[in-house]
Amino acid sequence: MEKKIWENIQKVRALSPLVHNITNYVVMNSSANALLAAGASPVMAHAEEEVVDMVRIANALVLNIGTLSKKWIGSMKIALKEANRLGKPVVLDPVGAGATSYRTKTVKDLLDTGWVSIIRGNASEIIALVTNGLKTKGVDSTENAANAIECAKLLQQKNKCIICVSGKIDYIISQDEIARIHNGHGMMQRITGMGCSATAIIGAFAGVTNNYFEAAISGMALMGVAGELAVTESNGPGSLQMHFFDKLYNITSKEFFNTIKLEIARYV
Amino acid sequence: MEKKIWENIQKVRALSPLVHNITNYVVMNSSANALLAAGASPVMAHAEEEVVDMVRIANALVLNIGTLSKKWIGSMKIALKEANRLGKPVVLDPVGAGATSYRTKTVKDLLDTGWVSIIRGNASEIIALVTNGLKTKGVDSTENAANAIECAKLLQQKNKCIICVSGKIDYIISQDEIARIHNGHGMMQRITGMGCSATAIIGAFAGVTNNYFEAAISGMALMGVAGELAVTESNGPGSLQMHFFDKLYNITSKEFFNTIKLEIARYV
Amino acid sequence: MEKKIWENIQKVRALSPLVHNITNYVVMNSSANALLAAGASPVMAHAEEEVVDMVRIANALVLNIGTLSKKWIGSMKIALKEANRLGKPVVLDPVGAGATSYRTKTVKDLLDTGWVSIIRGNASEIIALVTNGLKTKGVDSTENAANAIECAKLLQQKNKCIICVSGKIDYIISQDEIARIHNGHGMMQRITGMGCSATAIIGAFAGVTNNYFEAAISGMALMGVAGELAVTESNGPGSLQMHFFDKLYNITSKEFFNTIKLEIARYV
Repeated sequence: MEKKIWENIQKVRALSPLVHNITNYVVMNSSANALLAAGASPVMAHAEEEVVDMVRIANALVLNIGTLSKKWIGSMKIALKEANRLGKPVVLDPVGAGATSYRTKTVKDLLDTGWVSIIRGNASEIIALVTNGLKTKGVDSTENAANAIECAKLLQQKNKCIICVSGKIDYIISQDEIARIHNGHGMMQRITGMGCSATAIIGAFAGVTNNYFEAAISGMALMGVAGELAVTESNGPGSLQMHFFDKLYNITSKEFFNTIKLEIARYV
Repeated sequence: MEKKIWENIQKVRALSPLVHNITNYVVMNSSANALLAAGASPVMAHAEEEVVDMVRIANALVLNIGTLSKKWIGSMKIALKEANRLGKPVVLDPVGAGATSYRTKTVKDLLDTGWVSIIRGNASEIIALVTNGLKTKGVDSTENAANAIECAKLLQQKNKCIICVSGKIDYIISQDEIARIHNGHGMMQRITGMGCSATAIIGAFAGVTNNYFEAAISGMALMGVAGELAVTESNGPGSLQMHFFDKLYNITSKEFFNTIKLEIARYV
Repeated sequence: MEKKIWENIQKVRALSPLVHNITNYVVMNSSANALLAAGASPVMAHAEEEVVDMVRIANALVLNIGTLSKKWIGSMKIALKEANRLGKPVVLDPVGAGATSYRTKTVKDLLDTGWVSIIRGNASEIIALVTNGLKTKGVDSTENAANAIECAKLLQQKNKCIICVSGKIDYIISQDEIARIHNGHGMMQRITGMGCSATAIIGAFAGVTNNYFEAAISGMALMGVAGELAVTESNGPGSLQMHFFDKLYNITSKEFFNTIKLEIARYV
């Protein structure tokens, strides 16, 4: 799989997939920069008048509810339906699900509206989508990723999609396999939008491969490895942000293969 | 007081207060990053459907009118009332008050709607709130902070809250005391949103202490000291932004106590 | 002309023109930082209740449709009319024109509503405004800037304004002259909003000189030279962004005159 991931990283650079993001105000700039640094082509567009046109030329759609409001949710639904109609991948980031009932409800509405290929959230968010519990602390997780695995499996079964739970260890869950990525660094949580960038980057990979399990693994692996390498040069979150973008852009195969720590297991 | 400030800095790191920001598009990313670097937990949420829920789990509410519009002001009012009902601190940033009558009027509306614990603005903004004059140049101050002190005192008396006037010297004004902070550096004005970050950071401190005079002083002190230290390593505003986030994250007690220049006086 | 450009760079620093931006969410922060680093004073304001007031105190208006929606377009029209009434310069960035018909149509609406002084776009965008073709890939150009020259000339004639086509070579086109700038670097395309920053910076120059051909050349020259110098110190787009802001701030006349590569030709 590691070799596959590296090939996918090259594919993103070579094909520069167009990733249509309907995402939150906080991370629009950083998500666009992460996509560009990794070689993809980001576009942000939310007007109901144009999301259908944008989905048509996009290779993947990313929906992120970080700063949601009624109008934007309407546009997300229109875009989601069109992506489904065209068979294009959709990646959903349920930012802050569990923090307010509006967020939890909105994610359920979106999942009722159409099919998403991949959901990526932190442990609190994934748990909230299954338990309806209100425990998320704003947009930061209060739960350990390992605790979210059972919920992730239920969510996977219900929605027939790949679930990615990010945390100290990242878990990517398909119908019969689970991948664990032991990369990244705690300092990454001190930069806003790292999770949202992961979701956007997964969108780029879903734009170059139809295997969404592989796409989610590739995205989380690139994030974790680039972040881990960037931390070694950083004095804090400011320099980490900079080195992270640089590393997404200039990561070498040697760096990648020496750093990636991935396990994949089949359910018993 | 310097020791108190340093303890508060540790408290923010230890308790990671959740700061609910209804703020402007320009600075959402940088304010979130400043809060995270200082150890707090930021959340941005503006939908009228969820602001009440968000205030309930937050430790402080920050209202910033930098890119205001009708819908957002409505949400600010709802959030403000709920924060008042729950006795939670509210920090207001009257960005660009005085630049347009809409901004000046909006701040007055907010102050009529509920009680804010702390107002932080530049000299032009604070003066505009008292004189109704239209003199602010966009969002940058055209006035010296010292000239705003009398207006700040009037504003303090009228609204029974802490007033913070930031500038070359920062002034923090309570009913019977005035603090002066002689830190920071002019290059900080060449980065957008430094004032907004100050307001957000004050929100973090208001989330860990009920003494809002102390909270405002702590926030401005951390901003000024971190900025001043960061400038020494910087070639311009790009590297300053990076070093500033790093310094918020890694500032040591030695650096802090060697740099802070604070005076507090009781009115005569 | 090189000497004129350098004088204009000094003028922006000395006069700090207020640039009123109605721009997209992705680049608000980076455009504001570019303007501040270059010495200008940015303000972002989009509420229909205040755009007239803001245009009145501004030295230039920048309209950018990067994340457009109905409300915002309404405000752009109000601001555009007021700028025309007051004889203030307006710079238009038709982000993603050609990617969706909504964007192409919106630009035409704006051009029907009032007169803009300068249009700056990439080759795909400029071509789309003339041919109505839908070929832009999101917000990135799929066309060579040279291919857009004929379209730019038609656009110039129709709208009686300066057209700037940015790319590997930047072309600035007036009624009877064409300027070519051979600066910049491909890595700049791996940072989001570099084109939008160029438009904003052109706005700053239009705020200090009535010669809009010169203003557009000055803006593109400063962007290209600062970017090219910044790349030499950068390992990727993260560090490039930082060094770029630093260079806008600290560029010396020696650096400028040693790097600028500009040709101006009169049409035959």
